[in-house]
Amino acid sequence: MNQDDLKKIVGIEAVKYIQDGMTVGLGTGSTVKYLVEALGQRIKDEHLTIIGVPTSNRTARRAEQLGITVKDIDEVDHIDLTIDGADQIDEHYQGIKGGGIAHLREKIVAINSRKNIWIVDESKLTKQLGSFPLPVEVIPYGSQQLFKKFKKRGYNPKFRMDGNRFILTHSKNYIIDLGLGKMGDPHKLAKNLKDMTGVVEHGLFLDLVNTIIVGHEDGPEIIQAR
Amino acid sequence: MNQDDLKKIVGIEAVKYIQDGMTVGLGTGSTVKYLVEALGQRIKDEHLTIIGVPTSNRTARRAEQLGITVKDIDEVDHIDLTIDGADQIDEHYQGIKGGGIAHLREKIVAINSRKNIWIVDESKLTKQLGSFPLPVEVIPYGSQQLFKKFKKRGYNPKFRMDGNRFILTHSKNYIIDLGLGKMGDPHKLAKNLKDMTGVVEHGLFLDLVNTIIVGHEDGPEIIQAR
Repeated sequence: MNQDDLKKIVGIEAVKYIQDGMTVGLGTGSTVKYLVEALGQRIKDEHLTIIGVPTSNRTARRAEQLGITVKDIDEVDHIDLTIDGADQIDEHYQGIKGGGIAHLREKIVAINSRKNIWIVDESKLTKQLGSFPLPVEVIPYGSQQLFKKFKKRGYNPKFRMDGNRFILTHSKNYIIDLGLGKMGDPHKLAKNLKDMTGVVEHGLFLDLVNTIIVGHEDGPEIIQAR
Repeated sequence: MNQDDLKKIVGIEAVKYIQDGMTVGLGTGSTVKYLVEALGQRIKDEHLTIIGVPTSNRTARRAEQLGITVKDIDEVDHIDLTIDGADQIDEHYQGIKGGGIAHLREKIVAINSRKNIWIVDESKLTKQLGSFPLPVEVIPYGSQQLFKKFKKRGYNPKFRMDGNRFILTHSKNYIIDLGLGKMGDPHKLAKNLKDMTGVVEHGLFLDLVNTIIVGHEDGPEIIQAR
């Protein structure tokens, strides 16, 4: 069984948590792709009424193709449940997201959701966060000054580039990836980062996830995080 | 003497603080306009070498016309001094900026400056902040949800509009003005606002200004704030 099979397993498992009438946040990435496919199938088979709130244009397009009603975050009253992937999850069920460029939208949808489920393959679980680079979305104006501050603090920053062009997020911001190695206190770091002028958001998703579905060779594992 | 005359007085007074060889942050607004004019005159008369770091395109254009060397915030090593206006200043010399749309850039330049001077007419001084609306720059995506949260907290929020179009900042974000009336603890409010996902920055400039030059009928008053 390869990583892709593990992703498929959790995508299919996660769709069971969606109930008729729900407004569901739909994350981004390869694991979520399988969830969206499975959701489309359930809507077709069971004639469910589901509103999907996608966090990326790619998820939006695929959801629409599959007959899922798609609405923008600003058109819905609330979100019942959001299902998304994660790039790294520690033993306290805190996470890093943002290997892609959608982590700001993903976080906005997540914090506006009553429940959050993360679907991951087992490679994403770790004792301590930090070996995965922590993305920080920053305003381009002044970003070189911010970069210098990160460097001074020992954060080992790197602008995310495509050749010699800065990669832009949905909101036309830059991403600086922090190569922290290990992260002592994620809450403290999150606060320090968000407090800085020019920082729009970081990839730490703290105290947010309720249920984690982990893909293993022998089937999905369900973790009740909080 | 009208308000414009008072602005002119402080603009001309402030230019005395600029020394040959300095890199100077140049703010935005009607008071700064007079400063920039006066600086152009000094450069011409005294053959000064000054680098200007403007916070808006309008200031940049005018500075260039006047023969001031203009550089971007990301091209300079440091900024010696920034001179800018303010919309409201309380008795502890904390300020609100952002009646215009440039407050994010203004804050980025201010926090990267060794010294900050504010130039204002006397109408800007107040005992307590809050009667001037507090601007909050927010990511458009999810801004309706943020608006609802502000409303729930009693912040009396209003999107800044031009007719029925949302006004966009330099960074293509929206502004929500908070009609707080009075502000108990600006530091606490600043923290609460910046911590919220989707909030890019707010218009509270705390513990930042060193010198305030206030225009009065009988001449400029110099306040050493910190």
